[in-house]
Amino acid sequence: MKNRIITISRESGSGGHTIGKKVAEKLGIPCYDSEVIHKLAKESGFSEKYVEEAGECAPKGLMEQVWSHRVMGPTNEDYIWKMQQEIIKDLAKKGPCVIVGRCADYILDDEADCLKVFIRADLKFRTDRVMKETGATRALTEGRLKNLDKRRTIYYRFYTDKKWGVADNYHLCLDSGALGIDKCVDIIASVY
Amino acid sequence: MKNRIITISRESGSGGHTIGKKVAEKLGIPCYDSEVIHKLAKESGFSEKYVEEAGECAPKGLMEQVWSHRVMGPTNEDYIWKMQQEIIKDLAKKGPCVIVGRCADYILDDEADCLKVFIRADLKFRTDRVMKETGATRALTEGRLKNLDKRRTIYYRFYTDKKWGVADNYHLCLDSGALGIDKCVDIIASVY
Repeated sequence: MKNRIITISRESGSGGHTIGKKVAEKLGIPCYDSEVIHKLAKESGFSEKYVEEAGECAPKGLMEQVWSHRVMGPTNEDYIWKMQQEIIKDLAKKGPCVIVGRCADYILDDEADCLKVFIRADLKFRTDRVMKETGATRALTEGRLKNLDKRRTIYYRFYTDKKWGVADNYHLCLDSGALGIDKCVDIIASVY
Repeated sequence: MKNRIITISRESGSGGHTIGKKVAEKLGIPCYDSEVIHKLAKESGFSEKYVEEAGECAPKGLMEQVWSHRVMGPTNEDYIWKMQQEIIKDLAKKGPCVIVGRCADYILDDEADCLKVFIRADLKFRTDRVMKETGATRALTEGRLKNLDKRRTIYYRFYTDKKWGVADNYHLCLDSGALGIDKCVDIIASVY
């Protein structure tokens, strides 16, 4: 039987990462996020900072049409995408787990018995959360969150041919701002 | 304090109606759907069959661009839309309740304390459900479901300027096929 995997996609700052960790803790299974990044960095030779973004976001400042062109052959992102797929498939084979981000919902579609979760919240809630952590200004934080989500949307669209954040792609979409982080954890754990 | 209202938007055949009824029963509050239709029919003079579709779906067989034109002034749908808004706002003022469909999530955005729910399921699950009820063939049922959802999407887009089925518009999106009808009821009731 296929392993049962929880994939968590999330809007930036929505607390998806915290929710993933808490769900994993509650269920007594591992939560992968940084592990994927470490492995990718090690095997690819790129820095962790680089693969963290390049494995989930389109590059900064490039328009979608420009980035999507492949006239010069595969890009670094294509290379990382291919490695990321293998690493995530390997992790899913090890046993039940939670995987946060990295398009795992798409990568594992035929590989595992997935519970696909999407975490979102309104911009104010997300900005407040991130400002508390970073101490940055509201304007800067909002700009960063919007930019990151835009680049994630482009990346997801390009590699999966699906639209990020559309309910049809997930079993469960939760508003962490309205429901609260702990309620989200409870709901996910209750349907695992 | 504003009344707490649960709005349920749903893909055709996903069981959103059944879920709405069961949630209302569990919470001991009314569930409105046909009531809106009855009132609309009574007050507008149109038949119930007509307002059932015209209050939620773009007309059959018309392209979005053609239907969206208003060179001849307001249409029957505009008239029904306006009445529907008033009826739904009035129902929301009466007390806590569940309202299924009719763009209630958008209409009540500033009027009530809403828990906005979207119910979806894959086409096979929805087709199987509807076939059991109607006895129609698979091809016919699939075609009808797709057509109905397409017309709902156009209607929602036109009157609300939002995209139907995008996670950002809801607090909770649930896959009734994967989670089961009763689990959806439990989750919604638990966050009310």
